[in-house]
Amino acid sequence: MNTGKGLYTIGLDFGTLSGRALLVDIGNGQVMGEAMLDYPHGVLDSMLPSGVPVPRGWAFQHPQDYLDVLEYIVPTVIKQSGVDPEKIIGVAVDFTGCTLISLDEDGVPLCFLPEFADNPLSWVIHWKHHGAAPYKDEVQAAVQLHNPSLLCRHGGKISDECMMVKVLQVVREAPLLYEATDLIMEAGDWMTMQLTGNLIRSQAMAGYKAFWQEKKGYPDKAFYRMLDERLEDFVETKLRGELRVIGEKAGELTAGMAKKLGLMPGIAVAVAHYDAHAAVVGSGISEPGKVMLTLGTSGGFVLAHDKDCAVQGTTGMTENGDLPGLYGYASGQFSLGDSFAWCVKNMIPESCTKEAEKEGKNIQVYLSEKAARLAPGESGLLALDWLGGNRSVLVDAQLSCMMLGMTLQTKPEEIYRAFLESVAFGTRRIMEAYLGAGIEITEIHAVGGIVKKNPLLMQIYADVLNRHICVCKTTQAAALGAAMYAASAAGERAGGYATLKDAVEQMSELEEYGYDPIPGHVAVYEKLYREFERLHDYFGCENPVMKRLFAVRQQGLESG
Amino acid sequence: MNTGKGLYTIGLDFGTLSGRALLVDIGNGQVMGEAMLDYPHGVLDSMLPSGVPVPRGWAFQHPQDYLDVLEYIVPTVIKQSGVDPEKIIGVAVDFTGCTLISLDEDGVPLCFLPEFADNPLSWVIHWKHHGAAPYKDEVQAAVQLHNPSLLCRHGGKISDECMMVKVLQVVREAPLLYEATDLIMEAGDWMTMQLTGNLIRSQAMAGYKAFWQEKKGYPDKAFYRMLDERLEDFVETKLRGELRVIGEKAGELTAGMAKKLGLMPGIAVAVAHYDAHAAVVGSGISEPGKVMLTLGTSGGFVLAHDKDCAVQGTTGMTENGDLPGLYGYASGQFSLGDSFAWCVKNMIPESCTKEAEKEGKNIQVYLSEKAARLAPGESGLLALDWLGGNRSVLVDAQLSCMMLGMTLQTKPEEIYRAFLESVAFGTRRIMEAYLGAGIEITEIHAVGGIVKKNPLLMQIYADVLNRHICVCKTTQAAALGAAMYAASAAGERAGGYATLKDAVEQMSELEEYGYDPIPGHVAVYEKLYREFERLHDYFGCENPVMKRLFAVRQQGLESG
Repeated sequence: MNTGKGLYTIGLDFGTLSGRALLVDIGNGQVMGEAMLDYPHGVLDSMLPSGVPVPRGWAFQHPQDYLDVLEYIVPTVIKQSGVDPEKIIGVAVDFTGCTLISLDEDGVPLCFLPEFADNPLSWVIHWKHHGAAPYKDEVQAAVQLHNPSLLCRHGGKISDECMMVKVLQVVREAPLLYEATDLIMEAGDWMTMQLTGNLIRSQAMAGYKAFWQEKKGYPDKAFYRMLDERLEDFVETKLRGELRVIGEKAGELTAGMAKKLGLMPGIAVAVAHYDAHAAVVGSGISEPGKVMLTLGTSGGFVLAHDKDCAVQGTTGMTENGDLPGLYGYASGQFSLGDSFAWCVKNMIPESCTKEAEKEGKNIQVYLSEKAARLAPGESGLLALDWLGGNRSVLVDAQLSCMMLGMTLQTKPEEIYRAFLESVAFGTRRIMEAYLGAGIEITEIHAVGGIVKKNPLLMQIYADVLNRHICVCKTTQAAALGAAMYAASAAGERAGGYATLKDAVEQMSELEEYGYDPIPGHVAVYEKLYREFERLHDYFGCENPVMKRLFAVRQQGLESG
Repeated sequence: MNTGKGLYTIGLDFGTLSGRALLVDIGNGQVMGEAMLDYPHGVLDSMLPSGVPVPRGWAFQHPQDYLDVLEYIVPTVIKQSGVDPEKIIGVAVDFTGCTLISLDEDGVPLCFLPEFADNPLSWVIHWKHHGAAPYKDEVQAAVQLHNPSLLCRHGGKISDECMMVKVLQVVREAPLLYEATDLIMEAGDWMTMQLTGNLIRSQAMAGYKAFWQEKKGYPDKAFYRMLDERLEDFVETKLRGELRVIGEKAGELTAGMAKKLGLMPGIAVAVAHYDAHAAVVGSGISEPGKVMLTLGTSGGFVLAHDKDCAVQGTTGMTENGDLPGLYGYASGQFSLGDSFAWCVKNMIPESCTKEAEKEGKNIQVYLSEKAARLAPGESGLLALDWLGGNRSVLVDAQLSCMMLGMTLQTKPEEIYRAFLESVAFGTRRIMEAYLGAGIEITEIHAVGGIVKKNPLLMQIYADVLNRHICVCKTTQAAALGAAMYAASAAGERAGGYATLKDAVEQMSELEEYGYDPIPGHVAVYEKLYREFERLHDYFGCENPVMKRLFAVRQQGLESG
């Protein structure tokens, strides 16, 4: 470990349910303190604070929650760490996204105005709000017509989580609200603006979710007009604001905010980024070709590279997306830990849950231990990891999970293991898409809750991908990444770093341990992966049976 | 119901673990009494009575058990019924098969001779003895060369349960035993011979399991010589004996046996048949084109027809196989009730088993009730019913179960229902093979333990097959069928019937109730069945992934 510098930054990580502050020594990344607070209102997905009901699938947040959490976690982390506030040289925000806030001309969130407060769309539109889904096809058509090259940055399919889909819903369903809107911002940019007083946006966020491209900027007026006449001037008006690259400074901490937070005024505030992407540098990646694999309820596969390639089913791609000067690429698996949880809840018999209880073990620990005694291929099972559809490569939400190889001798731990293997095969398929597009992959860094909980899964990943898997020491990669942004934004003069790369290299905590492929396993998984690949293409393209069953199901639900 | 005649026959049903006597009024099939006794030695699959160990997968029985059971159940059923023995005009045996007994020149089972008693192969070789499997390929090759037309009567693959495969094992592994053998008999024929003193064999049994054909008889000497020189004269020597058709008389009850059993000497003893086939007439079938569907741990699909057709994957076909003058056809599904039991044991979570317990319900009853509230197609699931391989149509033991359509919302009762549907689709695929070969199917009679236990399954069958399903009143279709054979064998002069058809028509108990297809369900299942069919062919033929996974598994087990 490097020695500490005695200078610090704070990474502010705003997640789905809570905000967290990580106070870090910029000399070696050592965590001096950590503070966390849940948003008082959580996610508003059934009713607004006033009691107005929220339709199913819609999701909002309360902007005051972010400010309240900020004002608690920063003083708390400083106090907890015992660090002298004068030694804290920068802060940075990472945030969920695309999470949108609408402001009036005075910068007031529109949900705070009585005339709009009862309209859910005046509140912070949460990243997982799916109420805009009906507008997805219109946005898709406009992109296809006016900016087809964008499509391949989005896996050929515009997601309903994108900014313009959400904005179109507002225009159509709340035209007065839209009219009263002076600015629409990513919540991460808005929080940064609260700290600096400057209207600066994150170019990486704009590139990943708002159709910005380095050579073309945002799409032209014809694109927005096609969506809706009222959107024609959207970019110049409501989306105005300078874009800056991650690792750069968005501004300096205002005196007012410094006082509230117990920090020195004038320290650097870095450009914000999405939480999932801040974790890339947080996991110690500062070079092209190194993948950050997120193994959580869903799966992320993010890397930076110097080549501009069309990769099959990449769900996001943009310039400077994860490291300055490189293209950022993002792919993902919809259900990963969710799959194992589903399997345990719906497919594991009482005999196992009882036995686990008797041994005082978590059921997944119990199953993993039993499954670890099986050799690769021993169960004869093979599954496609599409319990939540396929988010990358095929980009099709109507696909579903398939499992084959069951016999009258098949045991529950074999089924559980097949689910573990299926997500590793799914990741391998994504990796093959990158390799096939000419993007080398040199290293894999794994982060996420499951990484340290399930060593069997990690070994299966190493065996299936036939790569060493580095397990990062930090469990707060996003917050640590934000702290790195802050150290870079502070710059050398303030004792920080000249570049984000320098910050990452100094502040990365060493790998705690890793997993190496076992040659005998690799050989078997190579065979199984070829079978997976063939079934992936069969059910993904050749025989759309899953989509037809989906249609039968929908018809039944609608008529029944 | 017809009126009783005051004349009776006894059906003697020798199953896997017990023998049963059913005393029936031949005027209307009314059951006057029923007696049952387990074989004292059960199935000898771990050791002989002497303690000599039995290799794994081998299975034998003790011939004395059959005689002891006979001498208990007949007097008991007579006593219990209160019927005057003078009014009992015939008896008949049905038996498991192919179950083989070897006798010396004095008619003594060779296992009773001290010099052979320690050799498991001297005992009754049980139908489910799989020790002969290594000889299957040799028999297959000989059939292919000398009698290829036979192959299509056996689904293209000779089963290790066939007579000649078992006999070849005896020749090779116990040559002295084989040499000392004067007669090798189906246990059903042997029991009939115990009753009559005559060496008469069942043509139907010879046709289904011993390669006999009406036009050609048994295969020629070249065939047997190819198997083994010592078998050249097998047919004339150890397989000698006149063949007779079911419904005919094999002889008359000997005075000695009459005394032991409490019956009149000289009454008719009918030709024997396998238990699964005696159930065809027992379920009330007396005409071509009516299918007997057996829904037990495995599934049977048997019918008689006047056409001689090659049906894809028929596992047995012979002249007079189930009704005199018609061709008998048999197909089957390896795992049926077994699949549901496997699903419940391995895939149903504690939340369900606990809830079922709370409601005081058997878990399958509980799941069926929940699953019955789902509409066809609502789950989006589809499965191939190959947990035990595919026994008909594809005839491939290395195939395995496949399920698709699972999402994070899939519930256990949906999975259970998908298993029910999968066996109905499997049956439909068999039915389509018959229809495709030009064999009309006019009616379906369902027998077996599950029929009255699982109304949801029966409705699914009606909907998937788009046929009315008759549920037979009897739960002892095999024993009732044997009683019909006896009434036919007794003949009109003794008060019985001139033909088996007459006996069946008079003695069939009426359908208790039935299931009619529900048009809305039929339409959805038609779509789902087309998907099933496509996947059946894909995994059965186009993409042998299941066989490759089976091979990977075998390699692992052998090297590990």
